[in-house]
Amino acid sequence: MKTTLSTLRRMWLCLALFMAVAGAWAQATQAKYVFYFIGDGMGVNQVNATQTYLAALQGRIGVQPICFTQFPYAALVTTYSATNGVTDSAAAGTALATGRKTKNGALGMLADQQTHVNSVAEWARQAGAAVGVATSVSVDHATPAAFYAHQAGRGSYYNIGQDLVRAGFDFYAGSDFLQPQDPHNAQAPSLYKQCAEAGYAVARGYNDYQRKARRAGKMVLLQTEEASQRQRNALPYAIDRQSADMSLANITRAGIHFLTAKQKNGFFLMVEGGKIDWACHSNDVATVIHEVIDMDEAVRVAYEFYEQHPDETLIVVTADHETGGIVLGRGPYELHTDHLRHQRMSAEAYATHLQTLMDTTGSKPNWEAVKRDLATNWGFGQGVTLSDKQWQRLERAFNKMKEGNAEDKKSLYASLTVLADEARAIMAEQALIGWQSGGHSNGYVPAFAIGAGAEQFHGQIDNTEIPVKIAHAAGWAH
Amino acid sequence: MKTTLSTLRRMWLCLALFMAVAGAWAQATQAKYVFYFIGDGMGVNQVNATQTYLAALQGRIGVQPICFTQFPYAALVTTYSATNGVTDSAAAGTALATGRKTKNGALGMLADQQTHVNSVAEWARQAGAAVGVATSVSVDHATPAAFYAHQAGRGSYYNIGQDLVRAGFDFYAGSDFLQPQDPHNAQAPSLYKQCAEAGYAVARGYNDYQRKARRAGKMVLLQTEEASQRQRNALPYAIDRQSADMSLANITRAGIHFLTAKQKNGFFLMVEGGKIDWACHSNDVATVIHEVIDMDEAVRVAYEFYEQHPDETLIVVTADHETGGIVLGRGPYELHTDHLRHQRMSAEAYATHLQTLMDTTGSKPNWEAVKRDLATNWGFGQGVTLSDKQWQRLERAFNKMKEGNAEDKKSLYASLTVLADEARAIMAEQALIGWQSGGHSNGYVPAFAIGAGAEQFHGQIDNTEIPVKIAHAAGWAH
Repeated sequence: MKTTLSTLRRMWLCLALFMAVAGAWAQATQAKYVFYFIGDGMGVNQVNATQTYLAALQGRIGVQPICFTQFPYAALVTTYSATNGVTDSAAAGTALATGRKTKNGALGMLADQQTHVNSVAEWARQAGAAVGVATSVSVDHATPAAFYAHQAGRGSYYNIGQDLVRAGFDFYAGSDFLQPQDPHNAQAPSLYKQCAEAGYAVARGYNDYQRKARRAGKMVLLQTEEASQRQRNALPYAIDRQSADMSLANITRAGIHFLTAKQKNGFFLMVEGGKIDWACHSNDVATVIHEVIDMDEAVRVAYEFYEQHPDETLIVVTADHETGGIVLGRGPYELHTDHLRHQRMSAEAYATHLQTLMDTTGSKPNWEAVKRDLATNWGFGQGVTLSDKQWQRLERAFNKMKEGNAEDKKSLYASLTVLADEARAIMAEQALIGWQSGGHSNGYVPAFAIGAGAEQFHGQIDNTEIPVKIAHAAGWAH
Repeated sequence: MKTTLSTLRRMWLCLALFMAVAGAWAQATQAKYVFYFIGDGMGVNQVNATQTYLAALQGRIGVQPICFTQFPYAALVTTYSATNGVTDSAAAGTALATGRKTKNGALGMLADQQTHVNSVAEWARQAGAAVGVATSVSVDHATPAAFYAHQAGRGSYYNIGQDLVRAGFDFYAGSDFLQPQDPHNAQAPSLYKQCAEAGYAVARGYNDYQRKARRAGKMVLLQTEEASQRQRNALPYAIDRQSADMSLANITRAGIHFLTAKQKNGFFLMVEGGKIDWACHSNDVATVIHEVIDMDEAVRVAYEFYEQHPDETLIVVTADHETGGIVLGRGPYELHTDHLRHQRMSAEAYATHLQTLMDTTGSKPNWEAVKRDLATNWGFGQGVTLSDKQWQRLERAFNKMKEGNAEDKKSLYASLTVLADEARAIMAEQALIGWQSGGHSNGYVPAFAIGAGAEQFHGQIDNTEIPVKIAHAAGWAH
């Protein structure tokens, strides 16, 4: 009896010891490698639309989970700014970067537009981690800028570029600088020159990055000059991408490669899917979905890294705000997201394509030719059956364009010819997806998380809590 | 040295023992008391709108958390049905009750409309727990019915009522039965009679409940007959409630009281906030918000119970689907939810009120009198400044009503006179809140949870997982 008891007691103590050690170990594990993905404009419905579309491609109702929606933790995040019920990307970026609310338009400053506040990227740098800030739009756009800049106005692109150099992070990536020259002083050195003087290699495209990475102390990775000449302010939409174009997954791969080579005390890498927002501003459903999938491809690159370092890696995927007020359902209790697969290019690219088509068909552009083109690029009349009324709307838009008396439909980042805009609107109607506006909304955004410290992401939280939770997970003072 | 080591070792073992015991204790704790709140139509934006409104009442931008949004766990829940991208309440109720997807319209049956499936309420009953099913609409409406009925069509109210009696749960509550008599056989006994024969006390109102509860073996709690004569299919909207009317909080209190008195092996209580959905179908923002607050009041009653039994209670608050495609923001980066406080009654009640007003002002109803009434009941021209165009829209609607040539605007559960509908639309515009449709959408819904087993609610889940997680938390076979 005594022996049994003693054995039991010993087993019990062993178990207790094991659990205590496991507990202490779990406690002690810190996030050495942090990925912070921000889908600009990616509210909960943008995510759900993507999964619903992917399931529809498989011919079924439901959702096909993407990489980051399978993360074990998720929080519902509130996004209002210090001054507005509906935030802009600067105030939201500042909240996500610094943990402080500010005025719409301000970057890395409080609402007084004077007091500087540091970001989690800066906290990481001070703790000895290598730091990268990357995006699919320009490197000086609001969201990336919130991590390194301190400016009262998000539009001061040249000053923001100078802040980028001043912050001195290890790795930056994006399409380009929007304003490489000082608009007030033509003699002032360009941002490219300032980067070079501060020890940055400026790589143009992913191949150029691979050539320059080994010898570079610090890196600014931009798209090729040829791509910048086509469109300076962003990488092409995923739906429009050509094989030579740089992708967010490329950038993420380069970021990991560069930051790990620094042999510093871990790293912090922010990656923005910046054009989800742009497509939402244009209410262009298929393009939004392809952008979400594209950011998810970048998340997959981080996830592969996580699989190699599961105890030391934290991946957080969130958004700064919802854009457009997208709604999956317009009345009937159905969705037809499968129709979206017929859309071959963004509404913005289609506007350009149409213009070319009309220019090349000579003095008398032909409705029958345009109709055939709408079948090819939107599936109208083929996979997607339109009503007579919808055809009439398209023809009316075509006639307006032909007569040259149609004003373009302008969204925040694009100008759509009336016919491209009508095609976009009709595709949304067919898919049974609705939009509320061309601006932002105050919907919750999701924050998905996996890895060391991910368990902090649960319940309802405010966007200002996210950088603090990340710093806590990584043990960075803030 | 030896002593120190030994002391350290002993301390370490003590700590280990403590952690192990604590761990085992946490593991062993099961949910004995389960609350399952379902906000019908309560998508994430309905919740966020409510919190934004409550902060605005305090004169600030942001959110004022309600009881259930402070729960530590939350999951993002997908809601599509077996047959439709956008679910109805029957299929969603069946998913939330039984863990199985079904066809829109079906209750407690698979999509074949033949195979019966049991609900978590039934699993609880079989495990010896007391069971209650309660709602703010009729007891035979889709959501409550999904927990006890097996019908191919949600509209078979008499049959559903018979299923209620047959299920034999301990406690039911709601406004009334919609179809107490068999529509096909006038000789068949009424559902009230069937309830009485099956051992149910039928209480009419909260006071009557208190009188009858002690001696009752089982309980059906309905509103007073007078209230049912006014409106049979639901309790009044919270915004329209008079002091004598029964509330969801009353019902929840009665449910807890009745089920604990049963002295069974714990209890399961489902409580539906059924009219959130109805107000959403009418796109009536203020009324939606008051309904969400009202359900939160009922959650608070459950939360008080949780505070007394924190280790043995689980509260889950979720929704069956989103209704209306509500969006917080209509383009400008602002919200004015504060305006909503001027709305004194639901748009539906206002339609009735207006009719009375017009009937009593004699043969020549007067626009000036109606304008004053719009100021009193909507704050128009007082707290809420309208544009000339908005006033013109109201006056045009008034004239249509006066001339008697206006068709009412019909939503799923209400019929609004054109002026009441215009007032509702203008209030939404003023608050900068948009709606997509009068139907459901496929938005994520939230699932908030606290208590024993609540940690299971994290990340993205499907609605079918919820009853399974509840059963797991409570140790009920399923």
